[in-house]
Amino acid sequence: MSDNSKDAVPRRAVLKAGAAAGLAALSAKAHADDLVPSAMREPGSPMSTYGAPSPHEADVKRILTPAYPDISPGTGSSRTPLHLLDGIVTPSGLHYERHHDGVPDIDPAAHRLLIHGLVRRPIEFSVAALARYPRVSRLVFLECAGNSGGNTQPEPPQTSAGAIHGLLSCSEWTGVPLRYVLDEAGVDSDARWLLAEGGDASNLGRSIPLDAAYRHAILALFQNGERLRPEQGYPLRLLMPGFEGNLNVKWLHRIKLAKSPLFTREETSKYTELQRDGIAREFDLVMPAKSVVLSPSVGMIVPGKGFYEISGIAWSGYGRIAKVEVTTDGGRTWAAAELADPILPQCLTRFRLDWNWDGKPALLESRAIDEFGNGQPTRAAWMAPFAPGQAYHYNAVQSWQVASDGTVKNVYV
Amino acid sequence: MSDNSKDAVPRRAVLKAGAAAGLAALSAKAHADDLVPSAMREPGSPMSTYGAPSPHEADVKRILTPAYPDISPGTGSSRTPLHLLDGIVTPSGLHYERHHDGVPDIDPAAHRLLIHGLVRRPIEFSVAALARYPRVSRLVFLECAGNSGGNTQPEPPQTSAGAIHGLLSCSEWTGVPLRYVLDEAGVDSDARWLLAEGGDASNLGRSIPLDAAYRHAILALFQNGERLRPEQGYPLRLLMPGFEGNLNVKWLHRIKLAKSPLFTREETSKYTELQRDGIAREFDLVMPAKSVVLSPSVGMIVPGKGFYEISGIAWSGYGRIAKVEVTTDGGRTWAAAELADPILPQCLTRFRLDWNWDGKPALLESRAIDEFGNGQPTRAAWMAPFAPGQAYHYNAVQSWQVASDGTVKNVYV
Repeated sequence: MSDNSKDAVPRRAVLKAGAAAGLAALSAKAHADDLVPSAMREPGSPMSTYGAPSPHEADVKRILTPAYPDISPGTGSSRTPLHLLDGIVTPSGLHYERHHDGVPDIDPAAHRLLIHGLVRRPIEFSVAALARYPRVSRLVFLECAGNSGGNTQPEPPQTSAGAIHGLLSCSEWTGVPLRYVLDEAGVDSDARWLLAEGGDASNLGRSIPLDAAYRHAILALFQNGERLRPEQGYPLRLLMPGFEGNLNVKWLHRIKLAKSPLFTREETSKYTELQRDGIAREFDLVMPAKSVVLSPSVGMIVPGKGFYEISGIAWSGYGRIAKVEVTTDGGRTWAAAELADPILPQCLTRFRLDWNWDGKPALLESRAIDEFGNGQPTRAAWMAPFAPGQAYHYNAVQSWQVASDGTVKNVYV
Repeated sequence: MSDNSKDAVPRRAVLKAGAAAGLAALSAKAHADDLVPSAMREPGSPMSTYGAPSPHEADVKRILTPAYPDISPGTGSSRTPLHLLDGIVTPSGLHYERHHDGVPDIDPAAHRLLIHGLVRRPIEFSVAALARYPRVSRLVFLECAGNSGGNTQPEPPQTSAGAIHGLLSCSEWTGVPLRYVLDEAGVDSDARWLLAEGGDASNLGRSIPLDAAYRHAILALFQNGERLRPEQGYPLRLLMPGFEGNLNVKWLHRIKLAKSPLFTREETSKYTELQRDGIAREFDLVMPAKSVVLSPSVGMIVPGKGFYEISGIAWSGYGRIAKVEVTTDGGRTWAAAELADPILPQCLTRFRLDWNWDGKPALLESRAIDEFGNGQPTRAAWMAPFAPGQAYHYNAVQSWQVASDGTVKNVYV
């Protein structure tokens, strides 16, 4: 690669740019102190029972947006700082949160899951009893239905990519397929829906089509290898891969089988999309295909022309990502980004593309297509059918404007 | 499933066993307090900037084994409690550690990676300069060469599966392929090896064949989405997927290109395997195919006959796991376990198998075969060639004896 005349993206450009940022040919003036820093001369810290991030990374934290900090500090959300991460796994400590009355402290030994309603016999499971059933593990994204809604505002928010799109995280979840416990209770043949209710003080409940739940739902016990975190539903969460986050009911304590949806508060006052024609979309449950460039992204500074890797994530509630295309010239030309293995259904997929920036203003966008052909609309096309203020399931193409001074802004085009 | 007459493994067995453990048909005596616990009546805790496990899971922690706690508390290892986890991802807080002089505190802004020796020009990289190169992400296991060595002792250790096999963890690692920076330095044509040296006080260094490093090594910056944890090499680690853990040099600060191995202390006093014939195996670097049943495993109690899921992990430094077979009768019969997606090279693979225990003594074993046909020997076959006290790269089949009272012991067969 030292002879880069045949490289589409000259690596030498990296070197040149890197020199200012700390890359340097070694000179004779290097001192012993430079070569043997104090960390190599003094013993370090001992082993620990449970690790934590480096103190030097203290700024990598969830972005908190409590809805009513004075009257209800537990209501609101926190977002994953996606723009500071790489790969597809979200560390559990940085998984986004959305709580409607805070994080309950639940004793796992006392917790029960009740299955009732249209079943042959109501039945209760302890966590220990559930844990004896066969399990499955899946790497799955969770996304709040309201994620990216800031981009429906009249002016594009100039907050970080995490602050805009970070109601989105990805974990390896392990648990018991819901169908096993439904079969134990014996679902009546006329049941078509179920209510899943959380054991928190908001009593959050959602109606879910029985067919989808029977085929896909997981009673999640583990996240990224260990038991669920408290803010992710400890000790038990309903996982509905690909469905809007709100259906992935945390602190799950009750499932009621029914003939029809139960029209809970969460599906009348919220999570229903009013259109301009006065008709509301109900039970629009699957998160659409979507992508976002994370590096570079709003708030970052591109330090001069030269080589960069454009990197981002794509996902679809319907299945696998088939393709991600990236433009740096506002859509005149598009290039297929490299998709990193593994490419899994209902999972984040990392995409990467080499970019040799000429230092002129650039408009960066990505567009994902999933294996079923679902893609992303423009912002105008996405907003056209909806009444003002609607923001659920926003999946329009995200545009980042890179100015010639390297600053990156969120723009509507 | 309520009519289980056609089920190979009757789910009714679960129900029966589960009743004792908390599964119960709901009776009329249920009180309102049972149905509406306090967590549903009082607001919970607010959002947090960085989450932590539930206080109810405080026992899920790394198993510390300092080598010289009084004179060198930073020297030794901690093990991942594999038997308490599920899935394939290890939470970063529970990733195993192996330190030779503790965890250094390194300022990422001051850290440098030096490439020198047989190169056209010595060159230094800051972390910021490295971070500008194209990156790759991979889910990869790390395993200490000495993992499972306890099973070479005369008596089988009756510690937990994590205490025996937990010098093994799996993360998603993201970083820069080493070949990019080698190309910047311009490797001389007669270089065949490189020395990778860590910036800790033990000055840990290992010789690595250049060809393998050029093709596979990653300069890892991220682990499970976020920057490396301090005890995993923050801010920079050399990742050699499939190679023994010791080669995955933490706090990487120097790479020297050379014609031959440098025979560091780590490859003369350690990590070299003396055979009974007096010949020592040197640079035996790839971790072999291996598997272990984690549930049930030593120290657990199987609470009576009935249905269980046998669950465990398999891995190979050479590539993907192709097959895992499990026996519950000491090897008279074997059944192919289900392998959970994704099945990735140099990554843990979770295997699962339904088991209907008849309550009689059972001998559980698993044996993995990778895509190249590498398998696992018996303990006797593994130990045959080695001099007493050798334990590196131990990958014999693990046997767990389940007694009729449900207790599980580690046995040699």
